[in-house]
Amino acid sequence: MIKILKVQSNKRIELIDITQEVRNIVSESSISEGICWLFVPHTTAGITINESADPMVVVDIQEQLNKLIPYHSNYKHLEGNADAHIKSTITGIDNYCFIENGKIMLGTWQGIFFCEYDGPRERKVLIKIIEG
Amino acid sequence: MIKILKVQSNKRIELIDITQEVRNIVSESSISEGICWLFVPHTTAGITINESADPMVVVDIQEQLNKLIPYHSNYKHLEGNADAHIKSTITGIDNYCFIENGKIMLGTWQGIFFCEYDGPRERKVLIKIIEG
Amino acid sequence: MIKILKVQSNKRIELIDITQEVRNIVSESSISEGICWLFVPHTTAGITINESADPMVVVDIQEQLNKLIPYHSNYKHLEGNADAHIKSTITGIDNYCFIENGKIMLGTWQGIFFCEYDGPRERKVLIKIIEG
Repeated sequence: MIKILKVQSNKRIELIDITQEVRNIVSESSISEGICWLFVPHTTAGITINESADPMVVVDIQEQLNKLIPYHSNYKHLEGNADAHIKSTITGIDNYCFIENGKIMLGTWQGIFFCEYDGPRERKVLIKIIEG
Repeated sequence: MIKILKVQSNKRIELIDITQEVRNIVSESSISEGICWLFVPHTTAGITINESADPMVVVDIQEQLNKLIPYHSNYKHLEGNADAHIKSTITGIDNYCFIENGKIMLGTWQGIFFCEYDGPRERKVLIKIIEG
Repeated sequence: MIKILKVQSNKRIELIDITQEVRNIVSESSISEGICWLFVPHTTAGITINESADPMVVVDIQEQLNKLIPYHSNYKHLEGNADAHIKSTITGIDNYCFIENGKIMLGTWQGIFFCEYDGPRERKVLIKIIEG
């Protein structure tokens, strides 16, 4: 079964911590051992796992991505969000984490972040949990 | 079981839409719920899921990758394709998508693209489908 | 069951070939068909699959990442390793490979590399193998 997590972004570019929401979905599944798969069904967004302790870490990620892939350039896609598509390919749209004793196994400093690159919008993350 | 999808590239750098080929393989598997895993067994190629509606999106991705990782530079790998190896690591060589009701679940604008970074060549994508 | 592979890095930035260690863990599992999942529980490290024949390939990857994401810049995360966090998101922290006849299926030139971006440290890679 696929669960849908809704994410509301409030800025054009924003990394949103969804760790607790993913933990809740895993907890509701009652699966004690397995893998939790995350998939972003959008082309101007992404997902990443990185430090959640200091909120400045994801700000640095956003700013460096903006330096490498500027908002405005001589892009050929004319909808004004070509940079967001490129950022999506660079961070990727899927990530997984292991489940043990009913809980997702993240490192001490890790959190799961939805990467909004063309917000604000209402977005989705598809989540599938398989026992094993 | 692992299926092998053959992909023929025609340029040095080229993102090739393989969505229909993946759909066909999922359809032939007769699996109605599960996950479809894609793996590129090459070191100068990759895979990404991004917009397939406007073909200019993947052109922008290629051109920006070329700006960030130029074809020629003072690379230490002397086969003339060091940039292709670096691009491969940046886009990644694997992606998965969920299967529901016998079909892969992609977002409205999403397509699956084989990323050729050192073509033209005959390439492969390994595909594994697991029920669950 | 989750296996833990320990990796000792010796430099600040270093791509370490862990292919043989992963092969050994797959071999010990006695699983003949399935998928081997790798997950790095760190926020200043990553994982990638790329060429292992010429060791200069991963040197080029490191050097290009250093050009794109310099060690020192006006980062907001003040622990002196903001670049390592950004590099982690760009290469990613997970990768998988298929298992057939008890062996991982890699392309001719492929090896699995742990990416250290803030070493030297003792690191871990979590490995989970599922039959299927």
